[in-house]
Amino acid sequence: MAPEAPEDAERRPRLTPAMADARRAVRAHLADIEAGGLVLVALSGGPDSLALAAATAFEAPRAGLRAGAVIVDHGLQEGSAEVAERAAKQARGLGLDPIQIERVRVDLYGGGMPVSGDDAIRGTGGTGGPEAAARAARYAALEVAAVEHGAAAVLLGHSLDDQAETVLLGLARGSGTLSIAGMAAVAGLYRRPVLGLRRETLAQACVDQGLEPWHDPHNDDDRFARVRVRHRILPLLQRELDPGIVDALARTAAIARDDADALDLMVDEVAEELVELEDGGCSVPVAWIAANPRALSSRLVRLVARVEFGLSLTRAQTLEVLRLATDWHGQGAVHLPGVRVNRAANRIVFTAV
Amino acid sequence: MAPEAPEDAERRPRLTPAMADARRAVRAHLADIEAGGLVLVALSGGPDSLALAAATAFEAPRAGLRAGAVIVDHGLQEGSAEVAERAAKQARGLGLDPIQIERVRVDLYGGGMPVSGDDAIRGTGGTGGPEAAARAARYAALEVAAVEHGAAAVLLGHSLDDQAETVLLGLARGSGTLSIAGMAAVAGLYRRPVLGLRRETLAQACVDQGLEPWHDPHNDDDRFARVRVRHRILPLLQRELDPGIVDALARTAAIARDDADALDLMVDEVAEELVELEDGGCSVPVAWIAANPRALSSRLVRLVARVEFGLSLTRAQTLEVLRLATDWHGQGAVHLPGVRVNRAANRIVFTAV
Repeated sequence: MAPEAPEDAERRPRLTPAMADARRAVRAHLADIEAGGLVLVALSGGPDSLALAAATAFEAPRAGLRAGAVIVDHGLQEGSAEVAERAAKQARGLGLDPIQIERVRVDLYGGGMPVSGDDAIRGTGGTGGPEAAARAARYAALEVAAVEHGAAAVLLGHSLDDQAETVLLGLARGSGTLSIAGMAAVAGLYRRPVLGLRRETLAQACVDQGLEPWHDPHNDDDRFARVRVRHRILPLLQRELDPGIVDALARTAAIARDDADALDLMVDEVAEELVELEDGGCSVPVAWIAANPRALSSRLVRLVARVEFGLSLTRAQTLEVLRLATDWHGQGAVHLPGVRVNRAANRIVFTAV
Repeated sequence: MAPEAPEDAERRPRLTPAMADARRAVRAHLADIEAGGLVLVALSGGPDSLALAAATAFEAPRAGLRAGAVIVDHGLQEGSAEVAERAAKQARGLGLDPIQIERVRVDLYGGGMPVSGDDAIRGTGGTGGPEAAARAARYAALEVAAVEHGAAAVLLGHSLDDQAETVLLGLARGSGTLSIAGMAAVAGLYRRPVLGLRRETLAQACVDQGLEPWHDPHNDDDRFARVRVRHRILPLLQRELDPGIVDALARTAAIARDDADALDLMVDEVAEELVELEDGGCSVPVAWIAANPRALSSRLVRLVARVEFGLSLTRAQTLEVLRLATDWHGQGAVHLPGVRVNRAANRIVFTAV
């Protein structure tokens, strides 16, 4: 085996287990992208996305791909522009190109000063709260960058720990299989190559290659539910319930996602045939609802409410609609916000009111 | 309205909201039982089962049914026979008949003195641990009593809080949708009429009718995972995540159970047609595995392993078997405990080794 040229050995960090884990994970996620394509790493400068950026900078050229970075500056903190510049510099040092900083504005705690400007995306303080608003702004900015550069994929640095936290946050919503399905490894443009790796592995990968991540002070701000899950709830669950709870939660998410995907697909496939447009609304057949398991019939009802009327039904509302088919005793219409649902001529009829 | 006879008004407790909730829940669960049938309440003497017993004693005769009680004496604590006798006396006071005390023996903490006798059911300290052993012993005893008396149903006093605890314990196992599906409201002989009611409602129902429940000291013994979930984990989740977490967990369980039931049913329906017996094992078609969503294909593989070989596969093992169909590149056989799985002639073949 030929010895490496000394200057090369000096420049290249020695491959450690953590770095190898990150690279292997990225490699698997690049395998199906067409040669010559561009992948963009969503880089915050934190340890997870920085380790992802480093692994991607290494793997992408070897897979015949180009790799760049998008840095979203939420403008939420004093000095956020400097944080973004520092991340951009690190990305450049890793050899990523292009590197784009997207500036967005989010009113994280609601009720603060109104912000304005072309790129203003405000938190509503409504459904989902400030964290959801920040997330929406971030994804919108990533989308803009991806379109601008014609990227084949945007890589996100979510870890196994993030996944476990997401499952617990979903449990609190209590909206079922999909709410505990966590984040998808692949969803449209987005890919999460390191979703199977622990946060400590990604932090170690940074240390191993001399990368100094930024530590977001928001990660210690316990006004955020996710921060409380991370620092208070998961440690207690590890101690009192099972030391392997993070893995268990991520595994549950993966299985739940499989289940939700399969059932959603089955309903999507029959929906076109089942749903008939009616005057001011639409209808579905009683016989199908009555003959199919509730996992399918409830999804059909929720699909109709969502697609036709923009409504997200609760479980109680969904069950009430189903009873028009499964427990019919001449009861009256079900009144949903802006929609009346009744039974007529062996169909369940949804009408805007 | 005619005034009640004074002696009657004195004897009958005034109907309170908590009592009404319990009775309504029981009424719904008795509706489909054939007139003249017997229902047995599994009574520990604790608040949940005592409230259930009282509601059942009230509702069963009005539904044309007979109602009795089974009291399981685990013999785990000093004075357990007296606790059982006291519960039997309360059941008699409520008008339940027959009343049967079943004595079982469980070695709850493992490693203790061996116990013996015809009715000895020992904890193995193995899969599931001491709580599972106690549970198995309890259900076996209930089954015996139900058969002996020809009961149409056994009513269990599990509450909404029990359900939430079960979901959290299932999450720690991480075995997916079914592990978070909690307890079924109806499962064979067993019914859980008060699964939708909070523990505090059932305790209040006892207070309201002057019933004095027994408080099991095991409920404060934090060697049990369930006790830690109840006293440490759920209060933290209520405080730090969502005050409505108990309801949310129970709702998640209900939706997950619907999903698991539907997917299990779909696979059960096709299994007979798909699985072919082979020399020393059986096989399933590659084409079906490859063409169906993972929620179904993984269930078929797990079903074959369970039914044909008594194996409970992990997710990792299941996925490895599936890759013989979905990611075939001439890889070798998958070695499971006592079973070899390989691909041959467009079938996935399971062979005992």
